[in-house]
Amino acid sequence: MSVALDGGWLAVVGLGPGDAALVTPEVSAALAAATDAVGYIPYVARVAPRDGLTLHASDNRVELDRARHALELAAAGRRVVVVSSGDPGVFAMASALFEALEAGPAAWRALDIRVLPGITAMLAAAARVGAPLGHDFCAINLSDNLKPWALIEKRLRLAVEADFAIALYNPRSKARPEGFARALELLREACGDARPVVFARAVTTPEETLRVVPLPDARPEMADMRTVVLVGSSLTRVLPRPSGAFVYTPRAVPAGEGGGHG
Amino acid sequence: MSVALDGGWLAVVGLGPGDAALVTPEVSAALAAATDAVGYIPYVARVAPRDGLTLHASDNRVELDRARHALELAAAGRRVVVVSSGDPGVFAMASALFEALEAGPAAWRALDIRVLPGITAMLAAAARVGAPLGHDFCAINLSDNLKPWALIEKRLRLAVEADFAIALYNPRSKARPEGFARALELLREACGDARPVVFARAVTTPEETLRVVPLPDARPEMADMRTVVLVGSSLTRVLPRPSGAFVYTPRAVPAGEGGGHG
Repeated sequence: MSVALDGGWLAVVGLGPGDAALVTPEVSAALAAATDAVGYIPYVARVAPRDGLTLHASDNRVELDRARHALELAAAGRRVVVVSSGDPGVFAMASALFEALEAGPAAWRALDIRVLPGITAMLAAAARVGAPLGHDFCAINLSDNLKPWALIEKRLRLAVEADFAIALYNPRSKARPEGFARALELLREACGDARPVVFARAVTTPEETLRVVPLPDARPEMADMRTVVLVGSSLTRVLPRPSGAFVYTPRAVPAGEGGGHG
Repeated sequence: MSVALDGGWLAVVGLGPGDAALVTPEVSAALAAATDAVGYIPYVARVAPRDGLTLHASDNRVELDRARHALELAAAGRRVVVVSSGDPGVFAMASALFEALEAGPAAWRALDIRVLPGITAMLAAAARVGAPLGHDFCAINLSDNLKPWALIEKRLRLAVEADFAIALYNPRSKARPEGFARALELLREACGDARPVVFARAVTTPEETLRVVPLPDARPEMADMRTVVLVGSSLTRVLPRPSGAFVYTPRAVPAGEGGGHG
């Protein structure tokens, strides 16, 4: 590993979807060795306070400031953990960290920087209902804070044409309630069938709710910022059973199928 | 949870990419409580033997037989763990389990069946090199054992048109050495640029190798069955530094960009 002043290092870690039993031992070890934990308020709140660990909680939408602060601390010899929910590399802090690194002083590139993976929301949600992502799939962030809405629509159309199962992150916020409604309309039109849609909210936490509805019955208000939405491919199946249905996508595509309905 | 004879249950679990520090405590607890571990030979080999735990290792390509066997054991009151590498829901055993469940006796649907997520190969590989999947992305299984090759090519073309970063699982095997060569040709043609390609082999194990090359330099023999291949989007960046480059995809897409080069 690279050398920093006084052995400082920086680890961008994933805390998983919520349940402590889904935090990897690697991440727990990094937290135990850190002098500083940096992150968005609700994620820093998941780090157990202890002597010798300074918590730096900041608000949403200041990812670059937070990344720079973490890099400065590591450059000063601190052992810094940047905490993300889920996996840090999936719509979380790792990209912001590298953006700040690229724009920052050249000396930062000699820092010991690691990314420690975590259980991302779509995989935790998929596991809770079965295996809806068991075949080819894609992950799309529905927030248009950082990209044009037209690109989101284009990607949704192409994802349907490819007949991917689709995981939708950040489907809906108070600041942009209308985007998800438009996305659902587009999906209904492009898919033209009753494939299952999974609304998985706050998965593995005490507030968890799971809901499976056919695409025509999916409504914008079934999602909020804590929800990940999984849209099945044309082959995704619902398997009824006494205690809530399973949803899964088979491994095989018969010849001539899987072309989607786009 | 549903009731089975004598409290039998079945958990389909992900062991992560290889390093024991990436096995979640939830999965470790299931392994500690199990009476039977069922899976493909190299994955069962990762389960520590102990008194009271029977190991059932089977060869590749018998996923449905293995799934049925696991369900039979659980129905007989055993506590069964089906082990997968990575995440069980991503090109692994969970889908096969639900296929066997759907085709099997109705009574199996009352069994206590859970899927316990794990760190899938693409996220472990992404973390080792930076954050190449930090924006919208897709995952495609390049094996054409269970789907037509034409569908794989169609999905690759649409993924490039959508300008997704692309994770390729099972890129190459001895049985089908030519598919990956055709996939690389297609990608070179469709992308028309020198975006980075990551070859991540046996990530987090002692045999790990990481290699980052521009797409025009990617060669089929850089991958084998233990490799996951990550192809950047048009915006993915390489960040040189003293100890091996970082690869990351920025969070933002400027207006008018991100349309791909398809």
